[in-house]
Amino acid sequence: MSELLVGDLYRFQDLLNAEEAAVVERVRAWLAAEVTPIANDHWSRAEFPYPLIKGYHDLGIAGREQSNLLSGWLALEMAHADASMATFYGVHSGLAMGSITTCGSPEQQERWLPAMTSFDQIGAFALTEPTGGSDVAAGLRTTARRDGDRWILNGEKRWIGNATFADLIVVWARDLEDNQVKGFVVGKDNPGFRATKIENKIALRIVQNADIVLTDCVVDEADRLQNANTFKDTAKILRQTRSGVAWEAVGVMLAAYEIALAYAKEREQFGRPIAKFQLVQDLLVRMLGNVTGSLGMVVRLAQLQDAGEFKDEHSALAKAYTTTRMREVVGWARELLAGNGIVLDYNIGRFVADAEALYSYEGTREINTMIVGRAVTGQSAFV
Amino acid sequence: MSELLVGDLYRFQDLLNAEEAAVVERVRAWLAAEVTPIANDHWSRAEFPYPLIKGYHDLGIAGREQSNLLSGWLALEMAHADASMATFYGVHSGLAMGSITTCGSPEQQERWLPAMTSFDQIGAFALTEPTGGSDVAAGLRTTARRDGDRWILNGEKRWIGNATFADLIVVWARDLEDNQVKGFVVGKDNPGFRATKIENKIALRIVQNADIVLTDCVVDEADRLQNANTFKDTAKILRQTRSGVAWEAVGVMLAAYEIALAYAKEREQFGRPIAKFQLVQDLLVRMLGNVTGSLGMVVRLAQLQDAGEFKDEHSALAKAYTTTRMREVVGWARELLAGNGIVLDYNIGRFVADAEALYSYEGTREINTMIVGRAVTGQSAFV
Amino acid sequence: MSELLVGDLYRFQDLLNAEEAAVVERVRAWLAAEVTPIANDHWSRAEFPYPLIKGYHDLGIAGREQSNLLSGWLALEMAHADASMATFYGVHSGLAMGSITTCGSPEQQERWLPAMTSFDQIGAFALTEPTGGSDVAAGLRTTARRDGDRWILNGEKRWIGNATFADLIVVWARDLEDNQVKGFVVGKDNPGFRATKIENKIALRIVQNADIVLTDCVVDEADRLQNANTFKDTAKILRQTRSGVAWEAVGVMLAAYEIALAYAKEREQFGRPIAKFQLVQDLLVRMLGNVTGSLGMVVRLAQLQDAGEFKDEHSALAKAYTTTRMREVVGWARELLAGNGIVLDYNIGRFVADAEALYSYEGTREINTMIVGRAVTGQSAFV
Amino acid sequence: MSELLVGDLYRFQDLLNAEEAAVVERVRAWLAAEVTPIANDHWSRAEFPYPLIKGYHDLGIAGREQSNLLSGWLALEMAHADASMATFYGVHSGLAMGSITTCGSPEQQERWLPAMTSFDQIGAFALTEPTGGSDVAAGLRTTARRDGDRWILNGEKRWIGNATFADLIVVWARDLEDNQVKGFVVGKDNPGFRATKIENKIALRIVQNADIVLTDCVVDEADRLQNANTFKDTAKILRQTRSGVAWEAVGVMLAAYEIALAYAKEREQFGRPIAKFQLVQDLLVRMLGNVTGSLGMVVRLAQLQDAGEFKDEHSALAKAYTTTRMREVVGWARELLAGNGIVLDYNIGRFVADAEALYSYEGTREINTMIVGRAVTGQSAFV
Repeated sequence: MSELLVGDLYRFQDLLNAEEAAVVERVRAWLAAEVTPIANDHWSRAEFPYPLIKGYHDLGIAGREQSNLLSGWLALEMAHADASMATFYGVHSGLAMGSITTCGSPEQQERWLPAMTSFDQIGAFALTEPTGGSDVAAGLRTTARRDGDRWILNGEKRWIGNATFADLIVVWARDLEDNQVKGFVVGKDNPGFRATKIENKIALRIVQNADIVLTDCVVDEADRLQNANTFKDTAKILRQTRSGVAWEAVGVMLAAYEIALAYAKEREQFGRPIAKFQLVQDLLVRMLGNVTGSLGMVVRLAQLQDAGEFKDEHSALAKAYTTTRMREVVGWARELLAGNGIVLDYNIGRFVADAEALYSYEGTREINTMIVGRAVTGQSAFV
Repeated sequence: MSELLVGDLYRFQDLLNAEEAAVVERVRAWLAAEVTPIANDHWSRAEFPYPLIKGYHDLGIAGREQSNLLSGWLALEMAHADASMATFYGVHSGLAMGSITTCGSPEQQERWLPAMTSFDQIGAFALTEPTGGSDVAAGLRTTARRDGDRWILNGEKRWIGNATFADLIVVWARDLEDNQVKGFVVGKDNPGFRATKIENKIALRIVQNADIVLTDCVVDEADRLQNANTFKDTAKILRQTRSGVAWEAVGVMLAAYEIALAYAKEREQFGRPIAKFQLVQDLLVRMLGNVTGSLGMVVRLAQLQDAGEFKDEHSALAKAYTTTRMREVVGWARELLAGNGIVLDYNIGRFVADAEALYSYEGTREINTMIVGRAVTGQSAFV
Repeated sequence: MSELLVGDLYRFQDLLNAEEAAVVERVRAWLAAEVTPIANDHWSRAEFPYPLIKGYHDLGIAGREQSNLLSGWLALEMAHADASMATFYGVHSGLAMGSITTCGSPEQQERWLPAMTSFDQIGAFALTEPTGGSDVAAGLRTTARRDGDRWILNGEKRWIGNATFADLIVVWARDLEDNQVKGFVVGKDNPGFRATKIENKIALRIVQNADIVLTDCVVDEADRLQNANTFKDTAKILRQTRSGVAWEAVGVMLAAYEIALAYAKEREQFGRPIAKFQLVQDLLVRMLGNVTGSLGMVVRLAQLQDAGEFKDEHSALAKAYTTTRMREVVGWARELLAGNGIVLDYNIGRFVADAEALYSYEGTREINTMIVGRAVTGQSAFV
Repeated sequence: MSELLVGDLYRFQDLLNAEEAAVVERVRAWLAAEVTPIANDHWSRAEFPYPLIKGYHDLGIAGREQSNLLSGWLALEMAHADASMATFYGVHSGLAMGSITTCGSPEQQERWLPAMTSFDQIGAFALTEPTGGSDVAAGLRTTARRDGDRWILNGEKRWIGNATFADLIVVWARDLEDNQVKGFVVGKDNPGFRATKIENKIALRIVQNADIVLTDCVVDEADRLQNANTFKDTAKILRQTRSGVAWEAVGVMLAAYEIALAYAKEREQFGRPIAKFQLVQDLLVRMLGNVTGSLGMVVRLAQLQDAGEFKDEHSALAKAYTTTRMREVVGWARELLAGNGIVLDYNIGRFVADAEALYSYEGTREINTMIVGRAVTGQSAFV
């Protein structure tokens, strides 16, 4: 059995069964060997480490039958190494493959999933638009017009992860006929599709986000996801991936705690390790509290998923809560490293920056608050 | 199976087995029928509802073999009804009976526990002193001097719950000979023992705390807890009861959330239930996040206890974290009730006030922080 | 010149001129001699110290021409001694006398103000209703029906401070004819007026709040405030008194800081004053930061008032901000006193409890937030 | 008179006299015209805009006699445009010129200050060392050994702003003979001096910080600051510059608020500007509260300085408090911009990142807390 993560004081890892633990151990070892060493450098240059894609293939973790506890824990491990790489994986396997699994016909699943499982084809997921981040359902402006066996897509998408190099982009558009949101799989070479990398990011710089323009983009009816008939179908995917972000937030917290603890034990001031100061222990223990409570939350969330009890408000609450706690944790960790906390080389800086993206993507705190609020009060406060 | 508590969004209660769930249901029903209706009135008058003691007997929950998950959940239920009554029970069954179970000889257990299990004899636990709240180990000043088969105790104790009416008081004193902390069971009629009720409390007003003076208090060697040889033995008891306080904190949060949610759905302003306002949903969802993360934490804590993996830092972290979250939750709930939140009749006031006592007793946030800090850094920051 | 208050690190008191400083000194000395010694006892019994009313008369501070800086500082001093007594004074001189000054005709001012200035007649201000705390303008349900030279008032009021013993109650009601809110001065012996003390309060227990029922309460046209024609006139009074609450919040913070600092220097644990511990200094310095920033805010607010630049959003921001900071401060102070913080005798308990009332009255944080929000964004978010 | 800054709701700017206001207006116009347009680009490339140095000369603001209120306000304005440029100016005029003014002989002042006032010679200030950030007094390891009319300096410095291009570097070293900390002005071409730019920063990227190595660096006795005899003299400079950082923190908050407010009024979701949502107004008003309280604090601080009442604890409190509030403000602003908040082009990203450096430099929150704590309790908690 692999060792516990430094911040796993309550031994949550013991909840994995032996087979799951072995998968975790393998993934953790690969991340430590391949991702951690190159993360700061690629982050600094805002470059994606394309050669690592093959490594994901070798891990054999995408598209397999597994408990939600294991899926979640793997997201945690990836984010513990690097939140960008966790996001790359989440976009590909959770959002893109998840769309096809949830909304594709059996034929479509067979057609697309094998090459995605092997990472020979990379996926992206194009839902967000320049004018509609939070208001994604009602505000969706990209249109799909049916023309015989084909559809003509027009519109703009923003923030689409992986989209500068993805092979298959799941695009969501509003059918001009019935006004419903439908899903389409667009190939990267489609002449009506253009993706431009978003520059000047200060968070998740390794992730390649794109602005997308669809100009009379022609898609065959066969490439329309056959079981995506309304936005409710899209929401099913988001519910699942939001819980993934909650796990990633825990991974980021664990990394930040680990970095801060190691620094505190090493760094000396006034003739002793700073770990001996009350104010430093205060920061560490606050971090550890947030980590532990958040882990308790996502573990239970996975159990609800595995038990078939999973609802939108469950993942919305976990996403809002854990990312809020994460933001505190990375802030305390950076504070603990003082000046050294603002240089990438001390590692904490990347996690501080990336946390901001996790906090806002897949539903801001505000939107997730109102999803939960509506469920528990029976009142909608969106508008 | 009984219904879920309103704030148990993640269905943690489902983790109880059928037998445990039945116990919870019985206790919850009794609390709702007997404790909730009289709590505000007794709180207001700072009186203990002595007739209810018989009800505890009838529930048959003290001194039985049960999982830590069930024990914890029962503490939660009691605090959900009233934190004072949870404290009464915790002092009797956790601290007093727990001392005898942990540190008494088999003969002593047989002598005292049956009448305590049936609530015919009520226990108290006298450790804290006027001059030593946090510094309880090194600072203990009450002395025990051996004199043949007897011990002579002298000193003062403060904050001792139940001690105005308890039959058996477990008193901790420093042996003048070997300087070690030892435990003694003192009867309420011992002429060397005097307990005076602490008046003017603004929290846990139903709990009867006493200042105790021990003046040449004579105790037989047979009434000295035979397996309490150093403060480490005392600490074992505190470790256990601290986790109980963490569960109580969750109970208080659940109550506060429930009160706030009901009020928000009922109270109208600007022509609609205030539950429809974003700022109100924000408060509710923050509460629910704290509740859910804290539940995740204490549930895992119970699993660690049941698995024999339980350490001081586990309960110290849970105590510090959940009581901190609880303080936020009761504050938000009171804020939501605005003016009505300061009148006892709307229920939230009692929980707001009582939360302050839970936050400070059984180790302040500061002390528990340093217990965890020492464990994770290897450095003591107490002085 | 009187000494600085312990928490006035930035010497804000030096901004008072010599004459103002002398008034402050006199009031402070009286409060220390008369109010502080009796506050906990009266709070505990929820009794008002009627004999002290004569002392207010002797101070000669009501109804005089003075800078807003001095008025504010006096509110601070009163709250520093006891928030209930500050509230008594604020209701009488700010709300009741302020209504007559702002909305009364010269004849009315002459008729009522002299006896109020001398505290021979005490005032109250009846605006809030059981169903409308925040929604006070649009939701006002108490009606006034003109009948020749008389008005017939009907309705209910809630939370009305001083109203169990006040001689003159300023009642706000909606004119059934033009639907505008108007003000009426009702005498306590009016047969249509009935006030019932609100019991079971956990905050500001010295303040005597009443539920009021008006049943065909007849008021002469001569007792209608002649210049209160719409709710905008009422709002002018609230703008002024809200800034008073902001000053009171600073007074409460100063008291809490002072109590906590004194305790920290006196109380020993682990063989040294707890003031020597980093975690204790952390609490103290956080408190002092809040005190100092809040003082900087209210001082500038008074300057704006004195310069005639004063707007609703100015007092709304100060009220929301300082009461939020105050709530943190009293919480930290109570935390610092640990167990002793929950006994009235250690003084902090009363301030902790009273802070909750200040936080909610004269506009909750939410309402004041939206007053400011509307001013700075140009968008109303009330509904 | 120039317009108020958007976030100056309480019109603090009105406290400047006409001449001061004119200076502020000139500086603000220059910053808007020259600094704001190039800031993101230079930040992104971690380059300093050397051509702008001439602009500082033309403003004529360094080294002149002026009130502390004006000095502070100018720091605010610079940070409102860009925190890096404010830091460049603070290091040059506050730390380097301030050292010479405070600790130099009249002859030295005459020799160095004119060219620094005109920005023909740029200054740096080398105090911090790799091993001693917080423990700067007792832990200073750089040594100075007197050798006739010369001194030989050896040691390492870290984080030294401007030091890659500064002409005059004020270096602090411990005299091996009397163990006291003394100051030396080292020219950039001194062969014993080597400065290496610190790369990979995630905050204040425009500031050029260097690691410095001093290897048998020879300095004439004439270049030793004649009135810097102990660390107490160095502390006088820090006291002054710490208050400057507090003003900068307010400038950063004002910028963040302004950006967030503009975005909220412009950005639409659900068919309306997001400024109309309660949760958005909540963020804005929290920001504005922090801005206003912090402004109240630094304005009073400047008055204390101008009145000669200024002590270490005053600036330490302001530095700790305002930078803590600033961190909240930039976080809320970024939250409000959601995804767009992580792209430099929307401006908020730079302020979020830079805030972390301001939070930690010139004394961390922890160190400043203990400076204040020592002053108010009489107890040192540093070790």
